[in-house]
Amino acid sequence: MPKLEFWYDFASTYSYLSAMRIEAAAAEVGVEIVYRPFLLGPIFKAQGWDTSPFNLYPAKGRYMIRDMERLSALRGLRFQMPNSFPVMSLQAARLALAVEPEGCIAAFTRAVFEAEFGAGRDISDDAVLSTVISALGLDFARISAVSSAPETKEELRRRTAAAAARGIFGAPSFVPPDGELFWGDDRLDSALRWAAEL
Amino acid sequence: MPKLEFWYDFASTYSYLSAMRIEAAAAEVGVEIVYRPFLLGPIFKAQGWDTSPFNLYPAKGRYMIRDMERLSALRGLRFQMPNSFPVMSLQAARLALAVEPEGCIAAFTRAVFEAEFGAGRDISDDAVLSTVISALGLDFARISAVSSAPETKEELRRRTAAAAARGIFGAPSFVPPDGELFWGDDRLDSALRWAAEL
Repeated sequence: MPKLEFWYDFASTYSYLSAMRIEAAAAEVGVEIVYRPFLLGPIFKAQGWDTSPFNLYPAKGRYMIRDMERLSALRGLRFQMPNSFPVMSLQAARLALAVEPEGCIAAFTRAVFEAEFGAGRDISDDAVLSTVISALGLDFARISAVSSAPETKEELRRRTAAAAARGIFGAPSFVPPDGELFWGDDRLDSALRWAAEL
Repeated sequence: MPKLEFWYDFASTYSYLSAMRIEAAAAEVGVEIVYRPFLLGPIFKAQGWDTSPFNLYPAKGRYMIRDMERLSALRGLRFQMPNSFPVMSLQAARLALAVEPEGCIAAFTRAVFEAEFGAGRDISDDAVLSTVISALGLDFARISAVSSAPETKEELRRRTAAAAARGIFGAPSFVPPDGELFWGDDRLDSALRWAAEL
C-alpha cells in the first residue's frame, strides 16, 4: 500500500482540519497514512519568528480564525480557539510518540485536536491529556513515563530535524515516499493522489 | 448579477492562477468579477517586510515555485519565474486602471500575467507592456499618458488603501459585497459560491 507522511504540530489549526478527514480521504484512494507529529517552534525560530505568524501578523491571524470557522462549518466540525494560542504542544507530541507502538496514534491525534479546537481545551494541561489517554484504554501513568523518557525526547528532536530536512516550513505538510512536498490542508487531496500514483 | 471583487498584484504568482480561470468559474455560477489591481508593497511594508515573503523565507519560496509548477501543469498553463521576483508591478497596475474605462481590464490582466509567468518576460519593461496594449487594439502612447496622470496615480493609492481597509494582507484576495474576505487561489471557488448566494 502506498504511504503518505502526515506532518503536524498539535498547536496548528489547519492540522486539525486535516487530522479529522485524512483517514477517510486516504481510504478512498488506498493510501496508508504515516503520522509524523513534530514541533513547529524550532522551525519558526530558524525563520526568525518567536511565535506563530498568526500572532506576528494580526490581519493574517484574524483571517485564519474566520477561514477556520467557515471550513469547520462546511465540514460539520466544531471550532473554537483555545484561550492560549499557540498552545505548548510539546507534551502532546511526546505522548503521540509514546502511544505510537500501541497502535493508537491516529485516534490519539484526532482526540487531542478535537479537545483543543473542537472543545477549546488546554492541551498543555495534563488533566486534558490524561482524559484522552484513558479514553483510548491506556494507562496514563505508564504512557506518561514513556513520553518523558530521554529516548522519546530525543526521538521528537530527530523528527523535528527530519521535518526541516524535508523542506517543511509549516503544518500540516504531506510527504510521499519520493520526497515531494505538499503544504496545507488545501493540498491534502493532491498529496494523496500523488502518493497513490507513485 | 452578484459581484465579486478580485484583488491582485501583478507581481503575485498565485494571482496569475486566479486571473486565468476566474471568468470561466464566475460564468458558471452567474457572478460578475470586479477587477481590483493594487500594490502589495505598501501592505507588506506595514507588516515589516521589504520584499516578498517568498524571498524572506527561502523554504517557502522554493515550495511556492514547485507548487506553481504542479498547479500550472494540472491546469494546462505555462509557468516560469521571471528573472526578477517580485517584479516592479507599479506601471502595470496603473495601466490596468487606464484600460478599465475602455472595457479591457480583464483581457489586459490576463495578457500581463501570461507575459510574466507564462513567457517569463519583464512586465516592468515598457516594450512588453506596449505589446500587450497594442494587442488589445489600443494606442500605447494614449493609454500610457492616462496611466501616468496624477489622478491615475492617486486612484491606485486609494485602491491600495481600500485593500488594507478590507483586511487584505496578500494576493489574490476576493471580497463579495458583504465584506467577507477570501484569500488565495484556493479560496476562489468558495468566494464565488459565497457571492452567488448573497
